[in-house]
Amino acid sequence: MTDPARLNITELALLLRDRKISPVEIMQATLERINRLDVELNAFISVYPELAMTAARSAEEQMSAGKSLGALHGIPIGVKDLFEVEGMIRTCGSTLLQEPPAKTDATSVGRLKDAGAIVVGLLNLNEFAYGPTGINIHHGSARNPWDRNSTCGGSSAGAGCAVAAQMVPGAMGTDTGGSIRVPASLCGVVGLKQTFGLASRKGIYPLCDSFDHGGPLTRTVRDAALMLQAFAGEDLQDPTTRGVTVGDYTRNLNQPITGLRIGVPKSFFFDDLHPDIESAVHASLQVYGELGAEVREINLPFGQEDTDSWNTMALVEAFVVHENHMKYNREELAPDVSERLELGRNISARDYLAARNRQTVLKHQIATIMDDIDILAMPTSPIPAVSIATGSVDVDGQEISGAAVLGRLTRMAVFTGQPAISLPCGFTQDGLPFGLQLVGRWFDEASLLKAANAYEQATPWHSMSPPDII
Amino acid sequence: MTDPARLNITELALLLRDRKISPVEIMQATLERINRLDVELNAFISVYPELAMTAARSAEEQMSAGKSLGALHGIPIGVKDLFEVEGMIRTCGSTLLQEPPAKTDATSVGRLKDAGAIVVGLLNLNEFAYGPTGINIHHGSARNPWDRNSTCGGSSAGAGCAVAAQMVPGAMGTDTGGSIRVPASLCGVVGLKQTFGLASRKGIYPLCDSFDHGGPLTRTVRDAALMLQAFAGEDLQDPTTRGVTVGDYTRNLNQPITGLRIGVPKSFFFDDLHPDIESAVHASLQVYGELGAEVREINLPFGQEDTDSWNTMALVEAFVVHENHMKYNREELAPDVSERLELGRNISARDYLAARNRQTVLKHQIATIMDDIDILAMPTSPIPAVSIATGSVDVDGQEISGAAVLGRLTRMAVFTGQPAISLPCGFTQDGLPFGLQLVGRWFDEASLLKAANAYEQATPWHSMSPPDII
Repeated sequence: MTDPARLNITELALLLRDRKISPVEIMQATLERINRLDVELNAFISVYPELAMTAARSAEEQMSAGKSLGALHGIPIGVKDLFEVEGMIRTCGSTLLQEPPAKTDATSVGRLKDAGAIVVGLLNLNEFAYGPTGINIHHGSARNPWDRNSTCGGSSAGAGCAVAAQMVPGAMGTDTGGSIRVPASLCGVVGLKQTFGLASRKGIYPLCDSFDHGGPLTRTVRDAALMLQAFAGEDLQDPTTRGVTVGDYTRNLNQPITGLRIGVPKSFFFDDLHPDIESAVHASLQVYGELGAEVREINLPFGQEDTDSWNTMALVEAFVVHENHMKYNREELAPDVSERLELGRNISARDYLAARNRQTVLKHQIATIMDDIDILAMPTSPIPAVSIATGSVDVDGQEISGAAVLGRLTRMAVFTGQPAISLPCGFTQDGLPFGLQLVGRWFDEASLLKAANAYEQATPWHSMSPPDII
Repeated sequence: MTDPARLNITELALLLRDRKISPVEIMQATLERINRLDVELNAFISVYPELAMTAARSAEEQMSAGKSLGALHGIPIGVKDLFEVEGMIRTCGSTLLQEPPAKTDATSVGRLKDAGAIVVGLLNLNEFAYGPTGINIHHGSARNPWDRNSTCGGSSAGAGCAVAAQMVPGAMGTDTGGSIRVPASLCGVVGLKQTFGLASRKGIYPLCDSFDHGGPLTRTVRDAALMLQAFAGEDLQDPTTRGVTVGDYTRNLNQPITGLRIGVPKSFFFDDLHPDIESAVHASLQVYGELGAEVREINLPFGQEDTDSWNTMALVEAFVVHENHMKYNREELAPDVSERLELGRNISARDYLAARNRQTVLKHQIATIMDDIDILAMPTSPIPAVSIATGSVDVDGQEISGAAVLGRLTRMAVFTGQPAISLPCGFTQDGLPFGLQLVGRWFDEASLLKAANAYEQATPWHSMSPPDII
């Protein structure tokens, strides 16, 4: 039998259902694997073997007692070290917080637990989730399972790492400018950022209130759907959540996608896009064509003004969150984080509101486009993973900075709030993975996941494992 | 028979139902009365007799054809000159807009028309609704029906005037800091600002996106409920509206209020509150006690920081709306308006967001208080109407500026978004009316209106007419 720690959620759930494996066996294998691999990979900032084993034994007792089980019963997950998880000490990837063990769970974590998931520990990230590289000078950076000298992308670096290295079958990350999708892309796993307002952020350390999302990283689209299903839905403690009905995301996952209208925005393909990524994404569009989708190039009105507007809002909101850290603990922050925070200090309220107004206008423009298009397709990241030492990567002889460009293609979906997913779609000649990004209609996660699943089923990328991780 | 123009909505609707009056008769009487009284009172900036008569004839034909009628069938209303009304030219109380006749109705106006209401014209206001006095230097100020030398309060001055002088039985105003409730108070009529998000602002010229509301002024609580019923509800064109079910606001209006828990926040009664207002509000609380309510003093955590936060947000948002007017047409704006707008120019985004954060915290604090309290009661305005000439009023030998204090007690409900109503509750020794303000739970307009109706039925104030207006 394969190491159970290496199975995905769907596979584990089937074995559990048929009583071919027990939650305790799964957890033992998971903890052993983390123990063995994470010394080098550094995906976790903290692991809680006792809490996890206690939960696994309790899950096993419930199974033995014949209780009806949640969809994630006995499934180990990791959670980005930005969420409150009962009994675990949150650091947010910083050294300046001195929080006691959390007394409650973030709403999304609590709902995953209600569905039966077991949290094994807290995952590495850019300090306070403020950066797209995955580099962390305080706790050491998570290492990319496909190349130990490269980052995992950020900010949910440990989530991408742990799922790619098959230490856990699923993890919760957060995405404010791309922080779920970028590490998913750079680690070769699935990363889903659901529609803004579909899921609660209560208990997640904020970065930018207008853009923060908590969402899953998994190895398959179906697993992401299962996790989303468990934590989506209104939370009266997070007023940004909407009272929409949560769909059954796995139900129509395998239906044909004939006639699906896929729009490919020209502006997301540009001169300094990594050539291997460009050609792989075009190949993936060909796959969609063969699956019966109508693929067409479109003009999407997302330009520099929108990127600037996202940036204005993000800078201001992050500064306000960290104003006291900047006042009292500035020297303890990573230099790139304090420098970025500083940029938000003196922005005027009218510039901030002008950016918000631009956001409203853009949403309307894109909503009109989405009347004729079901899904937008584009690369997730313009480059693959960057070097941990330099923070950059060589593309055709040019050194490209990860901090500068990694979030470039993921900002649109946080600015508009649309659901977006990153799917493994190939490897560079150097063997680094990257992702295809799909963006859907607001609150239509079902169609997005169906489109994603069709691609996954038609291609080999999701079943590949880093070659030297056994 | 009384002049039909002087009847309220409920009375007119009954006569219409019994075919004792026709829409054309009502409209003729209404237009005659406006024609006679408004030369002096100046409630309307524009009246559209032909549009109104055409609509009245059409309403009459529908009645004759036996079509099922809306709740406001054939009822004339006035609309603040800030709303789009098809075929009417909006000025916003300014001289710098050069809008053509509107091509469509604001959503709320369209819904009132769908219920059968007929708009007779556009009502006076502070320029761009930016001020609490009702003074307008461009179009002349509306005169208070209870004292021609006094203002009507603002900014929905003409709405208060037209309803108090019985030119129309109902009017639509807007409320950003108190602009419905203040003129209702100063004109001795009912003014209702529903929960933020219950009704659309589409087609209303914006002032402050976070606080703008469009709502009714009427002579009775039941009439306000009928109007609200017609225009409340989600509007996909206004993303701030919520998809809540609109209740039946008239259904339980006359039920007893035994056991209703009324909280009286101490901080809303202070040294320079007009003594007649203070004693009348205390008398009204006594009435509530006699009606079976439990009236108790409470500490409400709404203080200077909150007023400042409302102000910060309002100043910034208004500046952004009028940035081009300040750039190109500054000399055309009333001096007090351009001065107030200027204050929003240089506020920092972090101060703006700190104010928004304070708003979130306050809402939570007040939501907790509203677990134990059904209704908050307080004065609507600390002073009665001010002089048109000076903008101030003498209280115990002190000149109090209307611009400085008129919005003082109404800001809380726009800052928190709670529903609030102003009810006539007495007169100063000089014969000027003022209001009792009730504030309810979010989206629980039904309880607020029931509490308001109980008071109205137990007191004589709502049936009084300005003595020299016949």
